Amino acid sequence: MLPFQTLISLDKTLALPVYRQIANAITHHIKNGVLQPCTALPGTREMAEILDVHRKTIVAAYSELEVQGWICVTPRKGCYVAGNLPELKPGEWGQEAPGGYGKQMSAPFNVLTKERQGSIYPPNTPFHLIIDDGWPDTRLAPLDVLMREYRSLLKFKYKNPVTGTVTAGSLTLREAMADYLSETRGIKAGVPHLLITHGAQMAIFIAARLTITPGANVIAGAPGYATASQVFRHLGANMMTVPVDEQGIDTDAVADICRKHPVSMLYVIPHHHHPTTVTLSPARRMRLLELSAQYNFAIIEDDYDYGFHYNSSPYLPLASGQHDGRVIYIGSFSKSLASSVRIGFLVGAEDFIQQGMYLRKLLDLKGNHLMEDALAVLIKNGDISRHLKKANKVYHTRLQHLTTLLDTRLREVVEYTVPTGGMAVWAQFKIPLKQLSAHATKQGLYISDGTSYMAENSCRIGFASLNTQEMEQAITILASGI
Amino acid sequence: MLPFQTLISLDKTLALPVYRQIANAITHHIKNGVLQPCTALPGTREMAEILDVHRKTIVAAYSELEVQGWICVTPRKGCYVAGNLPELKPGEWGQEAPGGYGKQMSAPFNVLTKERQGSIYPPNTPFHLIIDDGWPDTRLAPLDVLMREYRSLLKFKYKNPVTGTVTAGSLTLREAMADYLSETRGIKAGVPHLLITHGAQMAIFIAARLTITPGANVIAGAPGYATASQVFRHLGANMMTVPVDEQGIDTDAVADICRKHPVSMLYVIPHHHHPTTVTLSPARRMRLLELSAQYNFAIIEDDYDYGFHYNSSPYLPLASGQHDGRVIYIGSFSKSLASSVRIGFLVGAEDFIQQGMYLRKLLDLKGNHLMEDALAVLIKNGDISRHLKKANKVYHTRLQHLTTLLDTRLREVVEYTVPTGGMAVWAQFKIPLKQLSAHATKQGLYISDGTSYMAENSCRIGFASLNTQEMEQAITILASGI
Repeated sequence: MLPFQTLISLDKTLALPVYRQIANAITHHIKNGVLQPCTALPGTREMAEILDVHRKTIVAAYSELEVQGWICVTPRKGCYVAGNLPELKPGEWGQEAPGGYGKQMSAPFNVLTKERQGSIYPPNTPFHLIIDDGWPDTRLAPLDVLMREYRSLLKFKYKNPVTGTVTAGSLTLREAMADYLSETRGIKAGVPHLLITHGAQMAIFIAARLTITPGANVIAGAPGYATASQVFRHLGANMMTVPVDEQGIDTDAVADICRKHPVSMLYVIPHHHHPTTVTLSPARRMRLLELSAQYNFAIIEDDYDYGFHYNSSPYLPLASGQHDGRVIYIGSFSKSLASSVRIGFLVGAEDFIQQGMYLRKLLDLKGNHLMEDALAVLIKNGDISRHLKKANKVYHTRLQHLTTLLDTRLREVVEYTVPTGGMAVWAQFKIPLKQLSAHATKQGLYISDGTSYMAENSCRIGFASLNTQEMEQAITILASGI
Repeated sequence: MLPFQTLISLDKTLALPVYRQIANAITHHIKNGVLQPCTALPGTREMAEILDVHRKTIVAAYSELEVQGWICVTPRKGCYVAGNLPELKPGEWGQEAPGGYGKQMSAPFNVLTKERQGSIYPPNTPFHLIIDDGWPDTRLAPLDVLMREYRSLLKFKYKNPVTGTVTAGSLTLREAMADYLSETRGIKAGVPHLLITHGAQMAIFIAARLTITPGANVIAGAPGYATASQVFRHLGANMMTVPVDEQGIDTDAVADICRKHPVSMLYVIPHHHHPTTVTLSPARRMRLLELSAQYNFAIIEDDYDYGFHYNSSPYLPLASGQHDGRVIYIGSFSKSLASSVRIGFLVGAEDFIQQGMYLRKLLDLKGNHLMEDALAVLIKNGDISRHLKKANKVYHTRLQHLTTLLDTRLREVVEYTVPTGGMAVWAQFKIPLKQLSAHATKQGLYISDGTSYMAENSCRIGFASLNTQEMEQAITILASGI
């Protein structure tokens, strides 16, 4: 007889009832081929003694197994493993999926694997300090207000179960957004022009999927936002890059490409180009609109950083100008509040938004409507605007503090231009950044080694998420590595 | 001189400062071509009188415009619209995006448009009652506990700004999941085998994208889960359907297809097939594992409904059997808690999960890690298990109550089989469902007209989200429509 005592290990501290544990164990061993078809099982009394449980427990386990068709219980003959089950050997997940699937993505994703080694997103490791890519300081965000609204909405739902699902996102949020965008950015968009997404990244994916067919020519600045380019390549785009100077992406270079090739889409970050933080000049904004009309290509305007400007106010988006629907505008609240609040949005023509809705449904059905409704309240109450005003003051101070530190502590090794806004400084190091990054890691400070920015010895120094004291510590660690 | 009084309308109740409103208005009119290049603007004093604001406000607005390069201010000569800006006409988003983009998706999405007319997701309309596709009752879920954990984590983050980002999802959640899946479902998966997604739908999209290349043969039951099939078709799959009977999908039909065609992937919902609610029998589960090994195809096991069983315990997933990594297991917490908690997961081989991580990054970067950490606490504390135990009792009662109502009030017009679990009854009507649905809508009750299920006069009656009184009202409305 098989050693059931060791085969069936019971743990009474588990959530799972003991009789279920017994049933599962037996099922498991049947599948593993340890218990062959037609094998006799000990009677309930005997098994109860073996496993040191009450007989009723075994009875429950056996009847469970019988109901599920794993064993046959015959009066006065005992229990047997069912005979109509094929024999099987044990199996688990290995390191590699068989049959090639899971491999077919390798080609496009090798790129990512490489980039990932120097991801702009620091890993979950024992870092005491993290110099990030330019993330907001969650400690400043009115998340308590957001959660208060969220909870009160939950309470309401308790009373009222009726909830509709709209893939485009919460109606109240889209209504609030329409006013907000028109008041703050001169964007005239109605509810039918708005799609709420799970973060700006999803908006980029959707807008790209709707404007790119495999082989299509797509223009973006170089260096540029790696994760966006990865999406475009993933969708089969033929990437054509143009230089980026202190005025933003080079529109003459864009014109040159348009004269030679049909262009489907251009991706631009008008405020604080990633990674170099430059702002697109008004003249170039208009030039882009002209070119998009002349050569009929779509512009994806990724304006995630609109809310953060220190020396002057932001320029109105291309989306507020004359675009005849050629501009697809993308924004996010992850920067305004916290990266954990994954609410982004996409503005476009009605039929475009319709398509986007269907695509979003395929990606993730819908967002968290309660959280979206809560955000709508904060927008209407002006909490968001007040927070942005406050955050801009704090971040401006932190930027000035960072530049002071760079000029005093790292003058010999770092070159940079003070950005007019955003949450990061584009720092070019005169020493090997990989070594400096390794040195910092030893001391519990994360700083990118530059790999992910595809630029030699350069990386972004996010100044928003660290207070002056934390930044002081961070720079001190870097200075000690020179 | 232009009528600036009407051209520049100010609203002091807006969040936007008045000087910004003036600057934006002037910028807008320059772009619109209303203010041509080199046009003279009124002096600050004159403009202040025209708009009835303090002169300092105009000074601020003008210097703003000058900084942004829209106007030139020359001492003793006044202000002029900059001359180096091309002329432009006004433009906005229309109904249709120009240049064909936003159209290219039409073909695949026409299908969706049709299906959408009878979406399984009720619209945000003035319905008093909604018979849904089978959603949980948010009022029963321990969302208050979840929010409490979430807030305490937020407070912690206030003190501690260091956050890493892992696309695979919160580490603590994946650790908790690994134990949870092994204790409750016999699934032996480690953290490297787990990917957290934004709802189960994203897990389906990712798993499909990694197992499907355009033209690949994919097997699914008919009728089946429409949104999944839409994903597969969207990714270029050649759909091959097999019948579904009371034992689940017909594995002999699967074998027939495999003998004739190479198959890349099979999609199966083992517990409570959507829409017909049948459960896949143990013998067929093993047959599927055999076939997948023999013909080397991937199985996407969508077990979203595992937690809800009334007459007996659920069967262990295929993923707990001998699959050698060929099974990709998908689950969700949206059903266990609330559809607003969009946390799903995917279990697979390590390299597969790696690929999935990169793809998820492209789709939405990452989830809400704070919420994921909060969920992890609920899983570890057993809150989830306790809730499921409680919810199962309640839902079982509601199911019995619904069947009683159907048997008494709608006996002549409805046929159905009592499901062993899940949250919906598959109801086949002997009268035109479209008319009944229209009648119900007039009385504030939503019920699908069946279109989305692609079955004549049949729809799912979700019984979990409505308490007995609400269900009574709903059925009464339906009965009045016969």
